Amino acid sequence: MSEGHVRKLVSSVDIRARIKACEKLAEAFGKVVKSVLVGEEPRLIIPKRTLSNTIYDKERGLLLLGPSTFERNFLDVRESKKFMQTLLMAKIIYEALMNNEYPTIRDLFYRGKHSIRYRDHKGRIEEENTWDEQKESDAVLRDIEVYVNLLREEMLILSKEKGKVVGDMRIKSGDDIIDLSKMGHGAYAIEPTPDLIEFIDVNAEFVLVVEKDAVFQQLHRAGFWRKYKAILITSAGQPDRATRRFVRRLNEELRLPIYILTDADPYGWYIYSVFKIGSITLSYESERLATPKAKFLGVSMTDIFGDEKKKPYLSETERRNFIIRAKKADIKRAQELLNYEWFKTEKWVKEINVFLAKQSKLEIEALTGKGLYFLTDTYIPTKIQTQDFIE
Amino acid sequence: MSEGHVRKLVSSVDIRARIKACEKLAEAFGKVVKSVLVGEEPRLIIPKRTLSNTIYDKERGLLLLGPSTFERNFLDVRESKKFMQTLLMAKIIYEALMNNEYPTIRDLFYRGKHSIRYRDHKGRIEEENTWDEQKESDAVLRDIEVYVNLLREEMLILSKEKGKVVGDMRIKSGDDIIDLSKMGHGAYAIEPTPDLIEFIDVNAEFVLVVEKDAVFQQLHRAGFWRKYKAILITSAGQPDRATRRFVRRLNEELRLPIYILTDADPYGWYIYSVFKIGSITLSYESERLATPKAKFLGVSMTDIFGDEKKKPYLSETERRNFIIRAKKADIKRAQELLNYEWFKTEKWVKEINVFLAKQSKLEIEALTGKGLYFLTDTYIPTKIQTQDFIE
Repeated sequence: MSEGHVRKLVSSVDIRARIKACEKLAEAFGKVVKSVLVGEEPRLIIPKRTLSNTIYDKERGLLLLGPSTFERNFLDVRESKKFMQTLLMAKIIYEALMNNEYPTIRDLFYRGKHSIRYRDHKGRIEEENTWDEQKESDAVLRDIEVYVNLLREEMLILSKEKGKVVGDMRIKSGDDIIDLSKMGHGAYAIEPTPDLIEFIDVNAEFVLVVEKDAVFQQLHRAGFWRKYKAILITSAGQPDRATRRFVRRLNEELRLPIYILTDADPYGWYIYSVFKIGSITLSYESERLATPKAKFLGVSMTDIFGDEKKKPYLSETERRNFIIRAKKADIKRAQELLNYEWFKTEKWVKEINVFLAKQSKLEIEALTGKGLYFLTDTYIPTKIQTQDFIE
Repeated sequence: MSEGHVRKLVSSVDIRARIKACEKLAEAFGKVVKSVLVGEEPRLIIPKRTLSNTIYDKERGLLLLGPSTFERNFLDVRESKKFMQTLLMAKIIYEALMNNEYPTIRDLFYRGKHSIRYRDHKGRIEEENTWDEQKESDAVLRDIEVYVNLLREEMLILSKEKGKVVGDMRIKSGDDIIDLSKMGHGAYAIEPTPDLIEFIDVNAEFVLVVEKDAVFQQLHRAGFWRKYKAILITSAGQPDRATRRFVRRLNEELRLPIYILTDADPYGWYIYSVFKIGSITLSYESERLATPKAKFLGVSMTDIFGDEKKKPYLSETERRNFIIRAKKADIKRAQELLNYEWFKTEKWVKEINVFLAKQSKLEIEALTGKGLYFLTDTYIPTKIQTQDFIE
């Protein structure tokens, strides 16, 4: 394969991303350098990532950081260690960008981990570690993300990824054009930096995200996406950042409706919530990663039990065989979800209350247990066609 | 995309696989039907999956099932339930094959789960469940795998998959030809039935399997496989069956050497062991899934500490910063590994004993912490070139 020899090892897309990130880092931290040069006290003004500064924007359906900021001053003895940690992390990231590297957050922890020897005010030699635990370096990295206004992926910091996709769609990733309809029985594993993907063309009417990889495999193999013109995605459990960003872009840029299919239990609802709203403690990510218009397709409590207007998809016998009794942790989780702003809609309150009354949950596999083609040709198409989803 | 319309939903490869599996099932269980028709006692003669019938074949380096079998008789009251479970499972699998379905093991559990009502010898109505837990249906499925001599993948039973691959290689999966060197920054997610993959052509000198997905992402992005003519694979932790089978086929059919890169700890060694030998409790899989010639590239204890002949890759300071103290569970695990036949080689005994003496472990990320290009251009190539691996 002669092409391998003439081809660059690293893609041109990455090189452009590096330059952009370096410029933004240099600008943000250049301010600190300048203040030192003119004899001012070095300090950082960083948006607060606290719960009290997290706002649920009802109109946009997003969790956002509020306007509060805090100062981190080098000359304040309570803040000087954190200040130095922040600058150490910024330096490591900048160097990695310049050296064509792709660190992970674990690498960043190791790269910065060392002991600093110094003399205290009485002349004694002391030692202090930069950090001991990854949660310290991770916290500093998050500060830098909000301070510079760059997600870590934009700084070419990589992480493990579980998300997969197939569908009638072409994308450009790195220097390659990839046809997501030509993956055979396998799938395309989404890259850790989905903002660098270019959508070339798409022939699909909606996106179906399934929680479970094994169900994704079945739908793929049965030709579901081909027959129903879907982009088929799995998050393989709790979605990672790349899968969330990829789904958001499909919705925002290609205007494709997003349907999410999980088990009928609080864990499944939470997966939906992470796609739709994001995580409460990391609200700064949500503006880029959340998909407020994502719809919960099922499996819903009315799918199982029906209601005054709807016939259930399960018979009495199937319910007896398939339903799993909810555990205490499920009940507790469901009660917590009732407190979230975005679960305070009529349909969600009803859904959660039926769950609490019946104390029953159901796996998607109970539906494929009724036959794979029941899932692909009855359940999913009917749910979409009758708009039987929860928002 | 007009092609989508003329194209079959399901691949021709799958159709052929279905026919083969149906024939083998019909042949194996046809014997039982015949015995009923001629008035003989229905029974199954099944290879024993017990530890005492598991043999380590030193020459081939494989765990194999021994020659012992057991009988399961319908007319023996202690065995009749198991006998009926086995036939129920065989029926479900056969029907799924005929109906073009792709069940998972969880589906199979749901499909078979129901209550049977009958009258006992005193005429009272009794109820008995076919099975209550998935471990019951899984055990029966394993019996069928060894009885029919078909792995479940060959019966088109799917499962979740984590393995990914990139490299200068073309494969055929389903009806598509896929170029694994054109995956952009993403990767090809290996299908659950890797026996159905056809290798078209390959331009590589070795296979590097990395335990950690995030390290895979880094090596991929840095162009490692292109520069060193490697097929790059991640198992994303404990390898699943599909990844193991795929690696085995690369070794057996394409004669590519397999190098496995994990953290330096008993968990990493166990991952290596699963690739090389398979799992002790599921030895019947090993004959198809294990890669006896797989080599443990590192990270090894001598990489960290050196020995009389070798300079370590880490300095004294790096060791101080990067090494993690082993936990009690690590020590216990290491002592267990010493009892496995295939760890009783000179190099492995030394490796494990150094670990037990130093009580130290190291993550791969400690090496990328030294710089990504240290890993790609110094550590891995030197280890391979000097044959500094453990078998």
